[in-house]
Amino acid sequence: MSKVNQVQIDQIRQLLGSQGVLTGNDCAPYETGARSDVGEAALVLRPKTVSELSTAVSFCVRNSIPIIPQSANTGVVAGSTPDPSGTQAVVSLERLRGHLEIDAENRSVQLDAGYRLSELNARLEQHGLFFPIDLGADPLVGGMIATNTGGARFIRYGDVRRNTLGLTVVLADEQGSIVKLGSSLRKSNVGVDWKQLFIGTCGVFGIVAECVLNVEPEPRQVATALLVPISLEAVLPLLDLIERRAGPSLSAFEGMSGNAIAAALTHVPRLKNPFSRRDLPEYAILVEISRNWEAQHGDLSIDEQLQMMLSEIWESNNDLLEDVLVGPSHEFWALRHAISEGVKAVGKLVALDIAFKRGDVMRFLKRMRTELPAAFPDVRICEFGHIGDGGVHFNLVVDRHSANAADPGYEGQIRSLVYNIVVNEYGGSFSAEHNIGRKNQPYYDRFTDERLKNFSGALKKATSPHPVGVPVLWSH
Amino acid sequence: MSKVNQVQIDQIRQLLGSQGVLTGNDCAPYETGARSDVGEAALVLRPKTVSELSTAVSFCVRNSIPIIPQSANTGVVAGSTPDPSGTQAVVSLERLRGHLEIDAENRSVQLDAGYRLSELNARLEQHGLFFPIDLGADPLVGGMIATNTGGARFIRYGDVRRNTLGLTVVLADEQGSIVKLGSSLRKSNVGVDWKQLFIGTCGVFGIVAECVLNVEPEPRQVATALLVPISLEAVLPLLDLIERRAGPSLSAFEGMSGNAIAAALTHVPRLKNPFSRRDLPEYAILVEISRNWEAQHGDLSIDEQLQMMLSEIWESNNDLLEDVLVGPSHEFWALRHAISEGVKAVGKLVALDIAFKRGDVMRFLKRMRTELPAAFPDVRICEFGHIGDGGVHFNLVVDRHSANAADPGYEGQIRSLVYNIVVNEYGGSFSAEHNIGRKNQPYYDRFTDERLKNFSGALKKATSPHPVGVPVLWSH
Repeated sequence: MSKVNQVQIDQIRQLLGSQGVLTGNDCAPYETGARSDVGEAALVLRPKTVSELSTAVSFCVRNSIPIIPQSANTGVVAGSTPDPSGTQAVVSLERLRGHLEIDAENRSVQLDAGYRLSELNARLEQHGLFFPIDLGADPLVGGMIATNTGGARFIRYGDVRRNTLGLTVVLADEQGSIVKLGSSLRKSNVGVDWKQLFIGTCGVFGIVAECVLNVEPEPRQVATALLVPISLEAVLPLLDLIERRAGPSLSAFEGMSGNAIAAALTHVPRLKNPFSRRDLPEYAILVEISRNWEAQHGDLSIDEQLQMMLSEIWESNNDLLEDVLVGPSHEFWALRHAISEGVKAVGKLVALDIAFKRGDVMRFLKRMRTELPAAFPDVRICEFGHIGDGGVHFNLVVDRHSANAADPGYEGQIRSLVYNIVVNEYGGSFSAEHNIGRKNQPYYDRFTDERLKNFSGALKKATSPHPVGVPVLWSH
Repeated sequence: MSKVNQVQIDQIRQLLGSQGVLTGNDCAPYETGARSDVGEAALVLRPKTVSELSTAVSFCVRNSIPIIPQSANTGVVAGSTPDPSGTQAVVSLERLRGHLEIDAENRSVQLDAGYRLSELNARLEQHGLFFPIDLGADPLVGGMIATNTGGARFIRYGDVRRNTLGLTVVLADEQGSIVKLGSSLRKSNVGVDWKQLFIGTCGVFGIVAECVLNVEPEPRQVATALLVPISLEAVLPLLDLIERRAGPSLSAFEGMSGNAIAAALTHVPRLKNPFSRRDLPEYAILVEISRNWEAQHGDLSIDEQLQMMLSEIWESNNDLLEDVLVGPSHEFWALRHAISEGVKAVGKLVALDIAFKRGDVMRFLKRMRTELPAAFPDVRICEFGHIGDGGVHFNLVVDRHSANAADPGYEGQIRSLVYNIVVNEYGGSFSAEHNIGRKNQPYYDRFTDERLKNFSGALKKATSPHPVGVPVLWSH
């Protein structure tokens, strides 16, 4: 694959304008990912409209330039950055933001892929609505769809897939074909639901240009508590009891290991320590319930409702809870959202994102507390997780003083050992929501049924035969 | 295509046993659908296990016998019955019911495709759980997945797609290959979510043999009311107000036309008339809210909560509601669920199932009240609908004394006129949840993008190259 020449650059600059094409040093911000994966791009294309995106893709296909679609580049598995060859074009969605239209009657929003989650929510707020995917990062919606993010309120609102009604994608074929898949409808069963095959597949079958998303009425009242379970074994029964009582009012059930809490409190100075009157617990759970109506005329407030629910559990199941802390919701969430920042400061972070049947989560975590240090003595487990949906951010931090911290092969050894246990022994997933990217590609290759790779190959050939995206999902 | 010969029958009987293979008159119950579509089968195969299903499919493929998968045969679009040629094999799922395993920790159930919805719920009830798809019919879970049914509580729990975690499918290839797609995990982003291709596509890419479903804690308290809106235009603002106040407590918002209510009350004698103290309304809405906790210590009961919500709306928006009726929940639901039975007694039923953006539903219904009688004077509109998700059971009843009632072409004229308006003028769907089948095949052919038919063709070839199922989703 040859690098791009000046004639080609001039040609595409004519079509996309000078702001639409970057070369040389101007490419630098697009060549480095959130976890310091560094590559080199042949050029960066920044289309402003769906039609320009089609032009950009068509240009790459006709000139045999592989495409790396890039959103806000907040992913952590090297899924949106070019490799070091200098032959790939980054196609950035960041300027694709001409159109955002809220349909309050339909509780939906149609928008270009280049809007940030925070911008979308700022616009929706005026209508008392929000897009219910709660993340620490602030990605573009295009990237959220391409990776199918979940987040902290999955237990109530589901993932991006559940909240995507329609997509417009640009295929990597000669024409850069623009294809509409689904629309603003919630119900339509007229053959294959094609958008599903473009959600969570990182653009390899086509790049998300535009979407229609389901949005939800904003809850008016929220109450949170921090629970300290008496043991790791008590976490699942607590989830079950709370879920059965709260039903869909339960909007978060987030587990945090003592190590993760300590990392956040030590390294993120703005935090208040909710455990200041006691020792840091071995494990804590952030529980949130929310509702849409205000209390009135003898109705319980939501805080009273949560307290009632928890004291009922406390009194009738005294072998589950060690402690219950109430306090300002935003302080508890600040702690929860600061964990990623905190653990990065502890040492070299290997951020695994795995998923289990709910019943297996705490069994796995308990087992790892003895097995992992035996295999990797210089690694500290700072995990937190969405216990209600079986996802665990299994953060492993290599001691910065260990020689292994500088060994690029060490991360692979860790991933390999953990993923083998997760997939082969628990039937779990090696990627709950981080997706594939270059970091997880070897494990996709290892764990995926050949037949499914063949299906992917047929789909790839029928949709976007040109190379696009980092993951390779088919057989060679 | 030749009919099946005795040697072939003997051969498959050896493999599936005498109960597993029906021929001649024994096939009759499998040859007629719920809406009197009648065909003729070459034979009926009734496998008892996933492995026997694979054997049955492989037998058909090797002997070039087209396959019609059949569940409880409750569908209304001729999607599960053989054509009149006598050359097709019905593969019935009704005996595929050896395995049903509830995982209460994971809030999921793994089961064979041949269980009825009512059986599944009876088993789940012992654990305080239920599968949240509420239907008038009682289909097998295999058929529910193959058609992606929605039902009356979609607004809160979504459709079958949202509640399907994993599938085992049998492909129509030489081997009758058994393929697992997904598992019991709620979160896993490791390439294409292949199960999506097999949901709602009526078995044409492979027959659903087994599944893992998400289940939900049973609500402890339910309250319902019948609202009479002041006009059709008031329905959508009422939905918006109630939805914003109730949030996820809102578990149904079902519209019923006066004609549909009258049909049920006239022809279904067991019903009590909730409107006995007033005229039948032109339109009524069944609203249901539900919650998981019992009222206690000063908390409002759920009935009080609903009444509070409705009187708040009544007082601050006096241009929306004409009347509010409270009464026993089961009586209101009995009326709602009796509509299908009632309208069938009025005359010849043409049951359309269409979907819109929520804002378009009432606009379309209002328009049809003048336009449809102008085009078809002998047709009465007896519609009801899931307004919260934009779906309308647009039931059209041809007067039994009209000559058109006996004309098989008349139904096609009606479908054609309505679908053209729905799809071309509103961007709606000609199949909200009934799916394709022989009745909707011409409209699939008419309204589907050629490119998407080509994608379907590529995946058909890669998965189940042999003819299976009634719909044809690809280009020829």
